[in-house]
Amino acid sequence: KVLWTVLVTMLGYASSLPVGEDALCTAEELAKYRIIFTGKWSQTAFPKQYPLYRPPAQWSSLLGVTHSSDYSMWKKNEYASNGVRDFAEKGEAWALMKEIEEAGEKIQSVHGIFSAPAISSGTGQTSTELEAHPRHPLVSFVVRIVPSPDWFVGVDSLNLCEGDHWMDEVSVDLFPYDAGTDSGFTFSSPNFATIPQDTVTEITCSSPSHPANSFYYPKLKILPPIAQVTMVKLKKSQPGLSAPFINLPAKSNEIIDTVS
Amino acid sequence: KVLWTVLVTMLGYASSLPVGEDALCTAEELAKYRIIFTGKWSQTAFPKQYPLYRPPAQWSSLLGVTHSSDYSMWKKNEYASNGVRDFAEKGEAWALMKEIEEAGEKIQSVHGIFSAPAISSGTGQTSTELEAHPRHPLVSFVVRIVPSPDWFVGVDSLNLCEGDHWMDEVSVDLFPYDAGTDSGFTFSSPNFATIPQDTVTEITCSSPSHPANSFYYPKLKILPPIAQVTMVKLKKSQPGLSAPFINLPAKSNEIIDTVS
Repeated sequence: KVLWTVLVTMLGYASSLPVGEDALCTAEELAKYRIIFTGKWSQTAFPKQYPLYRPPAQWSSLLGVTHSSDYSMWKKNEYASNGVRDFAEKGEAWALMKEIEEAGEKIQSVHGIFSAPAISSGTGQTSTELEAHPRHPLVSFVVRIVPSPDWFVGVDSLNLCEGDHWMDEVSVDLFPYDAGTDSGFTFSSPNFATIPQDTVTEITCSSPSHPANSFYYPKLKILPPIAQVTMVKLKKSQPGLSAPFINLPAKSNEIIDTVS
Repeated sequence: KVLWTVLVTMLGYASSLPVGEDALCTAEELAKYRIIFTGKWSQTAFPKQYPLYRPPAQWSSLLGVTHSSDYSMWKKNEYASNGVRDFAEKGEAWALMKEIEEAGEKIQSVHGIFSAPAISSGTGQTSTELEAHPRHPLVSFVVRIVPSPDWFVGVDSLNLCEGDHWMDEVSVDLFPYDAGTDSGFTFSSPNFATIPQDTVTEITCSSPSHPANSFYYPKLKILPPIAQVTMVKLKKSQPGLSAPFINLPAKSNEIIDTVS
């Protein structure tokens, strides 16, 4: 047996692996994955305006979906939906869940929704299980950066299927995005709607090109990844817990503390 | 066919339906449920010290588990585990997820973990899907009250199975609990560890019996429910979305606004 392991660690990862061609997925019926989200938003890596109080740096719940190419949760350089806006601005998931539900009902483009608990600090981990289907092999998710005007990290339409097999492991570095709906410049900017709404844009160390921007680091070429996500395929009929963890550390920030 | 519907709306609900006898569940293999959590923490119902800013009243992610009577997530009048303490005090889910994982591995007492996204206001809804197993027919979950010292709502070991069938719908009113790990009296009390740790206690309109307590309403006989949870059994092989919603309103607070 061949172990298929793909480690995707691309800089400025955005729309991910090309799926425009809609390559047919002929893999076996269903695949279960454990998804592990790791926050790497430390004061060491991101010293500028690092939020320490009310609230300190943290991550919202993770909200994700497995779907076909007929659905898109969010896309770079396109306008965010109302659901993504509510989630990116306030961490409010309901409208986005309703959008996903409607896409599932109307055009059968969605297999399932998944969510993982929030992380109460900038570095730490959260995890849940997801199920992909050969007709719905794409994964998208969002996690709000807290505090922030409308900033988030996420993945857009990452394909877990490669022809006739499911990938065993995928790991992706994550960078901050601006949902284009709130004009705040810094983590703790007051609420200030962007009218007309702008598109979803990546925030880099040089863009927006303004010294007030919380991620503006003119001496850097690129930002360090602010988070990372790993999806690991689960074996069928795993004993015990239906959604097993994979030798994760006892504390959510054990790995990260040793790295940073 | 008989429609089994049980609406459990008990006052001061805590350890829920008696499961001490460990009645055998002989229902069909697995059951899927949609769980809908509704926050009812409005300023109208709970005017005293209602948190309006930094942060305003809201609910953490929901973290839950389906299990056998060999596992207990939390129990009234018993000591909270470290995982429940971290979750109730900070909304940090990792340690609790690890405890559940270990219970699943060591004594096979857990079927699966589930979580639902946070709600960014005191009134609103969140939802996810859960799976119960005849050997693991009990549901427990916790949701942190934000802001608060270590207060939460939840359900302890609610049995979804009744002899040879799964219940079609269960609805439970929820009241606040104190995890016994932080001695704060009010929503915004500073962090102040309770040493030695106290047991999990229900917070009522008269207990703790002190005017400073945020839930102290001496003119009331009982508090109004601060939240509600409903679990609805899903039909097998439901088309489209694997985790369908059940005609929920477009906005998470549509129902609640008309009620309150």
